[in-house]
Formats: sequence, structure tokens, C-alpha cells
Amino acid sequence: MYLAKVYVTLKTTVNDPQGLTVLATLRNLGFAAATDVRVGKYLEVRIDNPDRSQAEALVNEMCRELLSNPVIEEYRFDLEEMAPEGSATS
Amino acid sequence: MYLAKVYVTLKTTVNDPQGLTVLATLRNLGFAAATDVRVGKYLEVRIDNPDRSQAEALVNEMCRELLSNPVIEEYRFDLEEMAPEGSATS
Repeated sequence: MYLAKVYVTLKTTVNDPQGLTVLATLRNLGFAAATDVRVGKYLEVRIDNPDRSQAEALVNEMCRELLSNPVIEEYRFDLEEMAPEGSATS
Repeated sequence: MYLAKVYVTLKTTVNDPQGLTVLATLRNLGFAAATDVRVGKYLEVRIDNPDRSQAEALVNEMCRELLSNPVIEEYRFDLEEMAPEGSATS
């Protein structure tokens, strides 16, 4: 059992209107120190597979097929081992 | 100059319909190993302040005032030191 922490971000060459809006709002609130904002997605996916390399391959496939748009986004992820559901100890 | 990597997630007690939709779609695509999905936000905020503790305090304020909804969300962040803009070396 693994927990995949997936970070999906816009490629640096892609315009980020949502980030610009957040930046403008921060500055309106008085946060003059904020100079740039980029907004992305963060997903936690629980993977029921005991093998780390298989779990990694699955997450890569999920990212390419659904979780990210490879045209404009990039992704990276960390895999954390978890105790199986229903077990009392780790 | 710091880069704050901010992770905003729904509290575990809060229902996540977006996560359930992603999970259902993953399973429809054949990813039977996916057993749970939670969707959150990931933000990168550039902070123009040379002092780490001041930068940390600013990011905490930003999270409380704009970037997260404290009623249903939690946040955490990492601060990474960056080279000032326009400088060639770090």
C-alpha cells in the first residue's frame, strides 16, 4: 500500500492567469513581498499494490492518462509506504 | 528571496467530491489499484524578503487570509532559498 503525493504544475512557458489573479489579490491585501505566484494541483492517491516499482509505474500512467495534461503541464510525485487498511500497526 | 511551496488540502473530515470523481474515473480507466483520491491545491509563491523567519510569517499570513479556507482546509509549506532575480550566481 502506497500513498502517492502528486504535484501537477503548469510548464514554465505557459501563462498562468489564476496565479496572476492570486498575486494581484495578495498585493492588494498589502503583501508587497509577493513577486510571483504559480498555481498547480496537489493530489494524494492511495495505491493498493505492495510492489514499489509497480506502484510507481501505475502512478506514472495515471498522471499521463488523467491527472495531468501533458501538453501544458508537468507532474512529479513522491511515493510513501503506508500500513495496509485495517491494520493496527505500521 | 524565498520560494514558498504551499500545499492546501481539505481537512480529513471534509467530504471531497472532486477526489471521488477522480477516483471513479481512474477505476473506469482500469486502475483497480487506486483506492482513494484527495484533491488539493499546490501554490508556488515567490517572496522578496531576505529574512527566513519574516518570510515564514508572511506566508502563514497569506495562507490564513487568502490561500486557504481555514474552515475546511489545512495548509503546510516549505521555504526554499532562491537567488535574487537578475543575479547570475546564487
